[in-house]
Amino acid sequence: MIDKLIAKIKETKAPIVVGLDPMLSYIPEHIKEKAFEEKGETLAGAAEAIWQFNKEIVDHTADLIPAVKPQIAMYEQFGIPGLQAFKDTIDYCHEKGLVVIGDAKRGDIGSTSAAYAAGHLGSVAVGSNTFRPFDEDFLTVNPYLGTDGVKPFADVCREEKKGLFILVKTSNPSSGEFQDKLIDGRPLYEYVGELVAQWGEGCMGESYSRIGAVVGATYPEMGKILRKIMPKSYILVPGYGAQGGRGADLVHFFNEDGLGAIVNSSRGIIAAYKQEAYAKFGPERFGEASRAAVEDMIKDINGALGL
Amino acid sequence: MIDKLIAKIKETKAPIVVGLDPMLSYIPEHIKEKAFEEKGETLAGAAEAIWQFNKEIVDHTADLIPAVKPQIAMYEQFGIPGLQAFKDTIDYCHEKGLVVIGDAKRGDIGSTSAAYAAGHLGSVAVGSNTFRPFDEDFLTVNPYLGTDGVKPFADVCREEKKGLFILVKTSNPSSGEFQDKLIDGRPLYEYVGELVAQWGEGCMGESYSRIGAVVGATYPEMGKILRKIMPKSYILVPGYGAQGGRGADLVHFFNEDGLGAIVNSSRGIIAAYKQEAYAKFGPERFGEASRAAVEDMIKDINGALGL
Repeated sequence: MIDKLIAKIKETKAPIVVGLDPMLSYIPEHIKEKAFEEKGETLAGAAEAIWQFNKEIVDHTADLIPAVKPQIAMYEQFGIPGLQAFKDTIDYCHEKGLVVIGDAKRGDIGSTSAAYAAGHLGSVAVGSNTFRPFDEDFLTVNPYLGTDGVKPFADVCREEKKGLFILVKTSNPSSGEFQDKLIDGRPLYEYVGELVAQWGEGCMGESYSRIGAVVGATYPEMGKILRKIMPKSYILVPGYGAQGGRGADLVHFFNEDGLGAIVNSSRGIIAAYKQEAYAKFGPERFGEASRAAVEDMIKDINGALGL
Repeated sequence: MIDKLIAKIKETKAPIVVGLDPMLSYIPEHIKEKAFEEKGETLAGAAEAIWQFNKEIVDHTADLIPAVKPQIAMYEQFGIPGLQAFKDTIDYCHEKGLVVIGDAKRGDIGSTSAAYAAGHLGSVAVGSNTFRPFDEDFLTVNPYLGTDGVKPFADVCREEKKGLFILVKTSNPSSGEFQDKLIDGRPLYEYVGELVAQWGEGCMGESYSRIGAVVGATYPEMGKILRKIMPKSYILVPGYGAQGGRGADLVHFFNEDGLGAIVNSSRGIIAAYKQEAYAKFGPERFGEASRAAVEDMIKDINGALGL
């Protein structure tokens, strides 16, 4: 899947991913009204609104981008119907040829991580049948439990040719509390980065590993160091746009081949119609606003990369 | 909810929690056959088998124990039907008066943690209605992202009087890779423990905080130190039984008031009928085997505590 992701990045000339993290407050009233009319002001109504919202954004951006990253929390908060919308979104994005990065930040002891890996990336057996319950292409993983919590995910990636992005240095303000703690003069995130590189060696695609890392756009200097520590790992870079990262900050997340990083924007794209720059589209044409925001993001990043 | 948990521990004289982590391989054939007959060898069939299995174990143990801890991964791996079985299990355990600890190990940037907190512990608004999608009483949380990833969970706990168990030192073999790294001569888990204590100060119940910690039974010496660092935090102790922990190892996880810790066993209880000690019950009477295993676990732990 890392090879497919890279091929699609080259094809679209867009090292970006659209974060499908639909808060109800992002969804235009006309979409919510229609969904609530059909399914009531219920969890199913919320899920329907999310699904219709996602669909329109995907329809307006799929030809421009290689990948999407649905954040499962935004669906899980609406219970079973919400998770059904998560699954429907994954399936629809696959139909459109997009790579799907499930942003779930799962991670547990070995046997439990194995269950998450089966459900999200692999398959489960029931009697004589097998099923692929969520079937994302990549999954984000939390490394706090160490190698035996990550290995079951890596094993499934090897079998299924799928991929991971492991949290190394997250984009949020307090990420440093633990991740920056110095160990023999070096921050914890460097140790995590070294293990990501090591885990990745056993999971190589053609030119990059199936095991990548998450490093926040909000910490460009750390991105520069981590780029060197994990030369074969793709870096998923959240924090662009609404969280404060800009294209110019991102140059060092990339390798000299122009590859090695994929930059996520969520709110900045999916709620673009709420920004002054795209207000002209209005809530009715929110999909077009998202498309314009994607075009601007691609320009910003490629401009910074000198492409 | 911490006050209810403590009251129930005193009432049952059982500082234990049964981990409802049903692997299909634990479920007796007669349960699976019936479920597959009704719903086919499908995800729905697997979910039905899990639900019937859980129900029988809860029916046979609810009067002996204060709490259960369903591990969401074991349900999530069976997709939407699996998650419905998770929700049904929570509701059924509530009907039986049990405290439910959702073992989900969620944790993300602030806005995302807020969505998980709403979905698992709090409520979500849809139009003019509000819903409590999963409605666990406690949730396990991964602290790797630091304070702003934990705060939304703590906020909901304060509002809803619910609780958290934050991963400090996990029970798995490689937990030390990052958690034991020395910072100025002290391991990372101590720093995490100090923050748990600090976060907990703003979330006090009557005698203990609503913010507890996870510390593995497999690391009793570390448990002893962490007990002192977090005097007001309940410690959820996984790793008893199948993972290697014994009652005698657990004494120092408790405070002098005989409270402060709750010990989890999953496989050791729910798959008891597969152990030699309980083989006499056979797969048909697996619920009774689980009950006997609960009684033995209570004896082991209370014996070690001199009760």
